Amino acid sequence: MNRIALLLIGVVALAGAVTFMAAASEQAGGGATPMFGIKIPVGYRDWKLISVAHEAGNNNDLRAVLGNDVAIKAYREGKLPFPDGAIIARLAWAYTPSEENNKVFGRAQSFVAGPPINVQFMVKDSKKYATTGGWGFAQFTDGVPLADAALAPCFSCHAPAKDRDYVFTHYAP
Amino acid sequence: MNRIALLLIGVVALAGAVTFMAAASEQAGGGATPMFGIKIPVGYRDWKLISVAHEAGNNNDLRAVLGNDVAIKAYREGKLPFPDGAIIARLAWAYTPSEENNKVFGRAQSFVAGPPINVQFMVKDSKKYATTGGWGFAQFTDGVPLADAALAPCFSCHAPAKDRDYVFTHYAP
Repeated sequence: MNRIALLLIGVVALAGAVTFMAAASEQAGGGATPMFGIKIPVGYRDWKLISVAHEAGNNNDLRAVLGNDVAIKAYREGKLPFPDGAIIARLAWAYTPSEENNKVFGRAQSFVAGPPINVQFMVKDSKKYATTGGWGFAQFTDGVPLADAALAPCFSCHAPAKDRDYVFTHYAP
Repeated sequence: MNRIALLLIGVVALAGAVTFMAAASEQAGGGATPMFGIKIPVGYRDWKLISVAHEAGNNNDLRAVLGNDVAIKAYREGKLPFPDGAIIARLAWAYTPSEENNKVFGRAQSFVAGPPINVQFMVKDSKKYATTGGWGFAQFTDGVPLADAALAPCFSCHAPAKDRDYVFTHYAP
């Protein structure tokens, strides 16, 4: 191995270390996801309801999709693409049978929201997130952001909904 | 049959006719449920989320439970009984498989809110609804209120939740 190769390895290692330190610093500085730089939006639990869903399989959750005022307005007006500033929140809870409700119904039929699983956000900023359809993606479990590597596939998974600005959830009237 | 018995029958028949006419008149007066006199609260679709659920069986729905500000405050503070003015809304939509989502997940696992089924309300007024735990009950399908006879069992069905002021739904954090 010659000196140029060693120098390159050194530069790459240094860059990696700097990136790691920057990410660690950002994460320590307030729970932002390093890849998209999204923090948990203040007051998102008070946002208006877009729709609800149940994902079985590995997810095994009940979920609510909420929107900030910019997102709700765009949904109700059928406005696409979503304007900058729109934020969509997906809250998921464990899919949990309710023994109490089942007794009232007289059969096993009731599933309710159990412990929270995680919260995801899609944040619209057409310039900042130009390479991912104008959307930044984030996920928080008990307030802790998901790491970069796990966020990378978010955009490609949403690609089939490109005609609806990469958003799967329809508004429930 | 003596004259006193006949008189009693006559009084009962008259009271029934008056009750029927009063109910018919009230219903014609603007979409309120005759039994509890509840109209669809303005802006309920904008209320904050309490929780979500799935009822299988005959219901076969996905549902969201929303609360007005009085109800949400009581829930978050763990305050029981709910104060007068609290209103809880239960919105139900048809439990509908999402082919689009299933393609993304690579398996049949996704169920979303389809067409709306109906909306129910519990309205707290400890004086007006003193005989039903302080709650008035209503259900609207496409804006049309449910008839008296069908509303009568609401309170008795909610009796098992007496310790939580007759409200089954827990707040989802």
